[in-house]
Amino acid sequence: MEKIAVLGGGSWATAIVKILSENKSQVNWWMRNENDVQHLIRFRHNPRYLSQVSFDLNYVKPSTDIQAVVASSNWVILAVPAAFVQLALADLPPDAFEGKVVISAIKGMIPKENILITDYIKCRFSVPDQNLLVIAGPCHAEEVALEKQSYLTIGSHNLATAENFCELLRNRYVKANPLDDLDGVEYCAVMKNIIALACGIARGQNYGDNFQAVLVSNAMFEIERFLDAIMPLHRDLSGSAYLGDLLVTAYSQFSRNRTFGNMIGRGYTVKSAQVEMNMVAEGYYAVQSIYELNKKLKVDMPITRAVYHILYERISPTVEFEILKDKFR
Amino acid sequence: MEKIAVLGGGSWATAIVKILSENKSQVNWWMRNENDVQHLIRFRHNPRYLSQVSFDLNYVKPSTDIQAVVASSNWVILAVPAAFVQLALADLPPDAFEGKVVISAIKGMIPKENILITDYIKCRFSVPDQNLLVIAGPCHAEEVALEKQSYLTIGSHNLATAENFCELLRNRYVKANPLDDLDGVEYCAVMKNIIALACGIARGQNYGDNFQAVLVSNAMFEIERFLDAIMPLHRDLSGSAYLGDLLVTAYSQFSRNRTFGNMIGRGYTVKSAQVEMNMVAEGYYAVQSIYELNKKLKVDMPITRAVYHILYERISPTVEFEILKDKFR
Repeated sequence: MEKIAVLGGGSWATAIVKILSENKSQVNWWMRNENDVQHLIRFRHNPRYLSQVSFDLNYVKPSTDIQAVVASSNWVILAVPAAFVQLALADLPPDAFEGKVVISAIKGMIPKENILITDYIKCRFSVPDQNLLVIAGPCHAEEVALEKQSYLTIGSHNLATAENFCELLRNRYVKANPLDDLDGVEYCAVMKNIIALACGIARGQNYGDNFQAVLVSNAMFEIERFLDAIMPLHRDLSGSAYLGDLLVTAYSQFSRNRTFGNMIGRGYTVKSAQVEMNMVAEGYYAVQSIYELNKKLKVDMPITRAVYHILYERISPTVEFEILKDKFR
Repeated sequence: MEKIAVLGGGSWATAIVKILSENKSQVNWWMRNENDVQHLIRFRHNPRYLSQVSFDLNYVKPSTDIQAVVASSNWVILAVPAAFVQLALADLPPDAFEGKVVISAIKGMIPKENILITDYIKCRFSVPDQNLLVIAGPCHAEEVALEKQSYLTIGSHNLATAENFCELLRNRYVKANPLDDLDGVEYCAVMKNIIALACGIARGQNYGDNFQAVLVSNAMFEIERFLDAIMPLHRDLSGSAYLGDLLVTAYSQFSRNRTFGNMIGRGYTVKSAQVEMNMVAEGYYAVQSIYELNKKLKVDMPITRAVYHILYERISPTVEFEILKDKFR
């Protein structure tokens, strides 16, 4: 039996635990909150996210002991918010991941350091490239809970390992495919949150569907320019892991990034939007990381720049979108 | 003053008349229905479509006399449904378009003959390539009526003429850009209706957002393969005229193709869906034309094939989407 650690208790972590445990892998599920673990053991569902999903405790082993969870697993899936990765892993020794495959299911970067999650893992825990994977693809966790047909792409430097991991995921409603572009899909997953935020800002300012379609078209070129600069490779950006992932986020009414952007577009300050939503949208951090990274690369990134200016330099969305509007084709 | 014929009384024709007449071109507007023309002259709006739009009759000249309308114009915009083009133009002599620029705003092909509208015009009226344009781009007519920011792409073999036409369109809420790929944008406009129909069928069968994102990703590759086979050219399919146009249709709740597909997906027969909707979705004809054309080209077009099988060979959507589901990545 495969032993897989899942670190994190959010909706995406919960969906991944569902998929893996139904395939009869042993899932060692780490959550920070002891009450949530007790609730899971007693009632067999996560009290906070996707509560309709019921788990078989023969396969799901919830725990708050991250060292034990990692030590007893040969695969480790990271599914905590990007901003908390360092804190969550703080208690692990540098050799904790030795001989294990580490998979990032996180769509964000390490704040301030502005590096990808897999790069952080590589440096902090000396995990070799061939043991790193990322889970990407257009996939609302809520639809996994409903067992709606979904597709995942596993980005890697090692297609054989990626294929082995795909085998653990595949089921009646999940298709999984390996792809040899770990960095590309990881960056794209970060950037799509910026674009979803921009779509929300546009909507909040009363721009319509015509404009959003043009925004997404222009975003594809912006993502392409950035990826070509930071990690040149022949990519077909129409693929599910890139365009698909962007679409499911940008067109979702449920995207937190979109909702956050919408409030900004309607005139809320960043602070009041965060208080109102009682959370921080990932795109808020992502745009800072990508903007900082791009100071050296100097890629033409009008959407990223506009979102950064609006969120971090308090420039009016109206002004920034007037500029974008004229730049778009 | 530029004199522009607009042929057709639907919502897209009405939006185009609004844009052109507000820019103080003289628009000679042909409609088939005498009552509609009288209503327009008396009340200054189209009784059937975008009725909130009021026209300045100093610039808009409605008429049922197609020969006079064409004869007194130097630009002619075709905006009737593809299935009625031959009938609408039947009374025009072969030299009716001599010295004029003819612009297709139609998103469809001549049924049975399976040729593009511009190819039909070229043959039937001997219009040279450099005098033919197509209007494309992600643009709901309803949003033009609301003066929401929109983008149009003018496909052509002659960028100078396209640029001249763009000048007639540009205003506060419309950006227009020329593009030297007349056939590509025209085919793409046809195919996007097939994809929107497929999205509707998927939705009708209860597939979710994850699946639709993957469907659209795979559709981009299908469109690319088809265009590369029928009209090879280096194209950036992420552009507004291609991807943007597809998105605005595929993700619109108001798309007739999507609605029609949704009914088919829920189990309506083609006939009952048509009766219920009191109209025929363009994608219904488009899929037949593209499918027939592809008999010679033999491009791998799983989505087009599935939609054709469902609509014309009464194969169950469930069966066809099981096949698609396994093909998608």
